[in-house]
Amino acid sequence: MRMAELSRRTGVPVPTIKYYLREGLLPAGERTSPNQALYDEPHVRRLKMIRALVEVGGLSISGVRDVLAAADTTDISPVKVLAEVQDRLSPIHGDEDGEHWQAAHDLVEDLIKRRGWHADAHSPAGVTLVAAIASLSDLGRDDLVGLVEIYAEAAETMAAADVSFVMERDNGIDDIVEGAVIGTVIGDAIITALRRLGHQHASNVLYDDPSCEPE
Amino acid sequence: MRMAELSRRTGVPVPTIKYYLREGLLPAGERTSPNQALYDEPHVRRLKMIRALVEVGGLSISGVRDVLAAADTTDISPVKVLAEVQDRLSPIHGDEDGEHWQAAHDLVEDLIKRRGWHADAHSPAGVTLVAAIASLSDLGRDDLVGLVEIYAEAAETMAAADVSFVMERDNGIDDIVEGAVIGTVIGDAIITALRRLGHQHASNVLYDDPSCEPE
Repeated sequence: MRMAELSRRTGVPVPTIKYYLREGLLPAGERTSPNQALYDEPHVRRLKMIRALVEVGGLSISGVRDVLAAADTTDISPVKVLAEVQDRLSPIHGDEDGEHWQAAHDLVEDLIKRRGWHADAHSPAGVTLVAAIASLSDLGRDDLVGLVEIYAEAAETMAAADVSFVMERDNGIDDIVEGAVIGTVIGDAIITALRRLGHQHASNVLYDDPSCEPE
Repeated sequence: MRMAELSRRTGVPVPTIKYYLREGLLPAGERTSPNQALYDEPHVRRLKMIRALVEVGGLSISGVRDVLAAADTTDISPVKVLAEVQDRLSPIHGDEDGEHWQAAHDLVEDLIKRRGWHADAHSPAGVTLVAAIASLSDLGRDDLVGLVEIYAEAAETMAAADVSFVMERDNGIDDIVEGAVIGTVIGDAIITALRRLGHQHASNVLYDDPSCEPE
């Protein structure tokens, strides 16, 4: 298909498609003349994935590039590809020299050990967790650290379901990686939104607000 | 204390503190001369909260301003303040004219009704949820929509724990709002990091990768 149809099919404006081509996020089409190229279904799919990562996942263009680069690395074992993809989906924040870093790190190591998780406290996700817990202490809200155990239980259940959903399709490594990227990024958005709806519910129930009765 | 000590106490560089003052994120100190002002404990606390929202929560400066504005609105009922704060912590993404929007909206309405949640599908969190589910369909990954029910169960458990943790301190509305802001933003970071560690665990177990045995 021509670029105009690619735009129509995906809802992405032509100038944006050209930008993604220049940035190398989208592979070039098959050139048919100096000014024209043809695109096919993988382009449609890739373009939709880029939009989802940007619009729903909130990733920057360079973040999208990193994730796609990991997703395109299919010459290693699936578990390594998934680890690569996931690492690039976990931006690291935080100050390792902070006052509460070591205590938070010990807490995370202990949590992983107690739960018997085959997981690495030094991976980007582990470091992000340490940073977040350290910042609760920095803010004088150590009381909230008590929630981590409840979250860990919930996260374990969700993650096990995620992995079995993504794996059971048996459509090859590309499909698994695509599912992992989409499921991780859009899954984050779904989970945080659901937790906020849960907060609405819990605080309405607590304060017994009659304006929020369900229909 | 002088600005230099405020900087030392919080680890925030002086130019950054000046920037926050200019942007109105941090209230002015008590002026003691044309070039000097004194700051106190609430400044320390506010500054740490700004850093946590930026570094761990990933909020922009205007996002921080919105959240703090909601947190400072204490002349209405607690449940309304919490709703305000929460709405500003839920950036809305997505295309309401998209092909799969209506079906996703119906799914969310049905989910809320079935679970008996006192929650609003038209709130920012509700709209974000609709957008995320619609984008799964846009991407041809309707299979992943099946995970929403599992996430909803987990989110309900986490949210109930959140609200009871934040409420049980009984230190007044400011403390509740601060707990809600910190717990929501940093809680998101903790939950997404824990889910990724859960993914590491689940995929290592599935592929039985010996390099990832716990110590």
